[in-house]
Amino acid sequence: MITPVQPLQRIGEGLRFLDQTRLPTEVLFRDTTDYQEVITAIQRLEIRGAPAIGIAGAYALALALSHVPRAADNQQNIAAEIRAARPTAVNLAWAVDRVVQATHRGVSAGQRPAVLAWQEAETIHDEDRAMCRRIGEFGAAMIPGHATILTHCNTGVLATGGIGTALGIVYTAAEQGKTIRVFADETRPLLQGARLTTWELQQAGIDVTLICDSVAAVLMKQKKIDLVLVGADRIAANGDTANKIGTYALALMAAAHQVPFYVAAPMSTFDSATLSGTDIVIEQRPAEEVTEGFGKRTAPPGLAVYSPAFDITPAGLISGFVTDQGIRPGGRLGDYFR
Amino acid sequence: MITPVQPLQRIGEGLRFLDQTRLPTEVLFRDTTDYQEVITAIQRLEIRGAPAIGIAGAYALALALSHVPRAADNQQNIAAEIRAARPTAVNLAWAVDRVVQATHRGVSAGQRPAVLAWQEAETIHDEDRAMCRRIGEFGAAMIPGHATILTHCNTGVLATGGIGTALGIVYTAAEQGKTIRVFADETRPLLQGARLTTWELQQAGIDVTLICDSVAAVLMKQKKIDLVLVGADRIAANGDTANKIGTYALALMAAAHQVPFYVAAPMSTFDSATLSGTDIVIEQRPAEEVTEGFGKRTAPPGLAVYSPAFDITPAGLISGFVTDQGIRPGGRLGDYFR
Repeated sequence: MITPVQPLQRIGEGLRFLDQTRLPTEVLFRDTTDYQEVITAIQRLEIRGAPAIGIAGAYALALALSHVPRAADNQQNIAAEIRAARPTAVNLAWAVDRVVQATHRGVSAGQRPAVLAWQEAETIHDEDRAMCRRIGEFGAAMIPGHATILTHCNTGVLATGGIGTALGIVYTAAEQGKTIRVFADETRPLLQGARLTTWELQQAGIDVTLICDSVAAVLMKQKKIDLVLVGADRIAANGDTANKIGTYALALMAAAHQVPFYVAAPMSTFDSATLSGTDIVIEQRPAEEVTEGFGKRTAPPGLAVYSPAFDITPAGLISGFVTDQGIRPGGRLGDYFR
Repeated sequence: MITPVQPLQRIGEGLRFLDQTRLPTEVLFRDTTDYQEVITAIQRLEIRGAPAIGIAGAYALALALSHVPRAADNQQNIAAEIRAARPTAVNLAWAVDRVVQATHRGVSAGQRPAVLAWQEAETIHDEDRAMCRRIGEFGAAMIPGHATILTHCNTGVLATGGIGTALGIVYTAAEQGKTIRVFADETRPLLQGARLTTWELQQAGIDVTLICDSVAAVLMKQKKIDLVLVGADRIAANGDTANKIGTYALALMAAAHQVPFYVAAPMSTFDSATLSGTDIVIEQRPAEEVTEGFGKRTAPPGLAVYSPAFDITPAGLISGFVTDQGIRPGGRLGDYFR
């Protein structure tokens, strides 16, 4: 049984969170009762990963209702402020709305909004833990006894309330005694793969090798990759998937080499209100993340930089979706996992 | 007229070279009379780019013949030592061999080996300058009045003895009054695109935007790229091309989006002794370039890293080759530059 680190934890009427920007060299937890500190942490990617952002947003609203005077009267504004922390993350709006609705329902029954908010946030967290387990089990069922898996960004314990989505499948397959080898894309510009995925897999004793993003195509050409597993930030009604920048390129490479390409995500990531990928607004990241991301300037001053946070992978490049309710087919035919 | 920086210069019987690992924050030239310092500079990528490595190798042999006692008797060993500095770079072996042959021819005519070596090294340098100009002119002839060009790694004044290969085309088109916009891949792990290409294009007043390697596919999907131009380290007899890691992925993306993909290289990069890409030995780079390349550790200690310096782009993904003797067709049919 894997006993993962807990990056988000309720402590009384406060929240303890792991500052993921310090990894892999420092393991720093912060305790806060200030919901705006949680908003800032989401914006700075100290808390990141679609499901984890949702859970943190739910806890943030509970923090506000516990500690901000007259927060209940001002709940819609606070909820909007939290939802705006990362506009592309559909789980954030979804989780915040659930807390808002839970307080409305309970308040008419005479209960304290803060108590209701904490309960609902914890329920969301527990549900996410269970969802990760189900995704892990559905996904692991299709992994053979020996498999080499390529993954992008971070989709594990550091991104969710449980064992993760794409990495949840890796953990579950490993728990089942399968021999799993992982290649982790470093995932420029913020290196979530290098800093986070390798760290959490290493902690769990899983064989992991780091590559630069551009090396994935070479490994596929060498027939070293059995399967690509990625997460998702938002999945449109037609299956087009917004995920970390680099996912689209990886999906193209996988299709070119007939390597199965699966997206692992809870059903809450499917957004039926978004018809296709063209309706998804893509957030731009600051130039400095590319030009001086890690302690040293790596580009001349005054340079123009184009740095989208996400890209859209068309459904036609996706072999399938591993959800907490089973595997759904994608639009890429003929290359299902063998 | 562009007046580029001179990264390699003969100064008497010494060599002045620009330490490119210091860019873009420091412009540091080093003067040396020690051929082994040139070997180290090539290995550390202080001197880099296939043609520049060849020129530096030729000067290194001249330095040895000028300054190492009894070097002429030991010339084959010294030449082998220089050739081994970067085994994938065919220009290095080619240039060193030219200097060896020039000294042999001249010595039988009674001339001093060192004098002959300096002459031949300078001839190689001058020829490269002229080759760059010819590549620039052949390539620029196919560029329309307004064009957006995507490039990878560095192939300009910092990589050659002249204005460059792929970037030589950019400079020449700009000199002809064409409106050229460049997107430069940062080129992990060593960031030659971010550190060098953006710097030299910015110095020349050319519109340049930096992207992470994984963003190229998104720009192509948005139809923002008219043409991809890259260099080459070695081109096999069948057209398979070894170039900086990431080139193969870029060629796949270009083919998937019907974006023309051209390789710019002097004829000396074509290696008729190498039948196809599978015969090219790919050098592995140290893990630290990936895990602590930005001045700060970005991956946990003890991590396995797979970091090939080059990849092989099959001829079938290449629209054409821009050489100093004109444009040769590649193996990718139907997507020539419009």
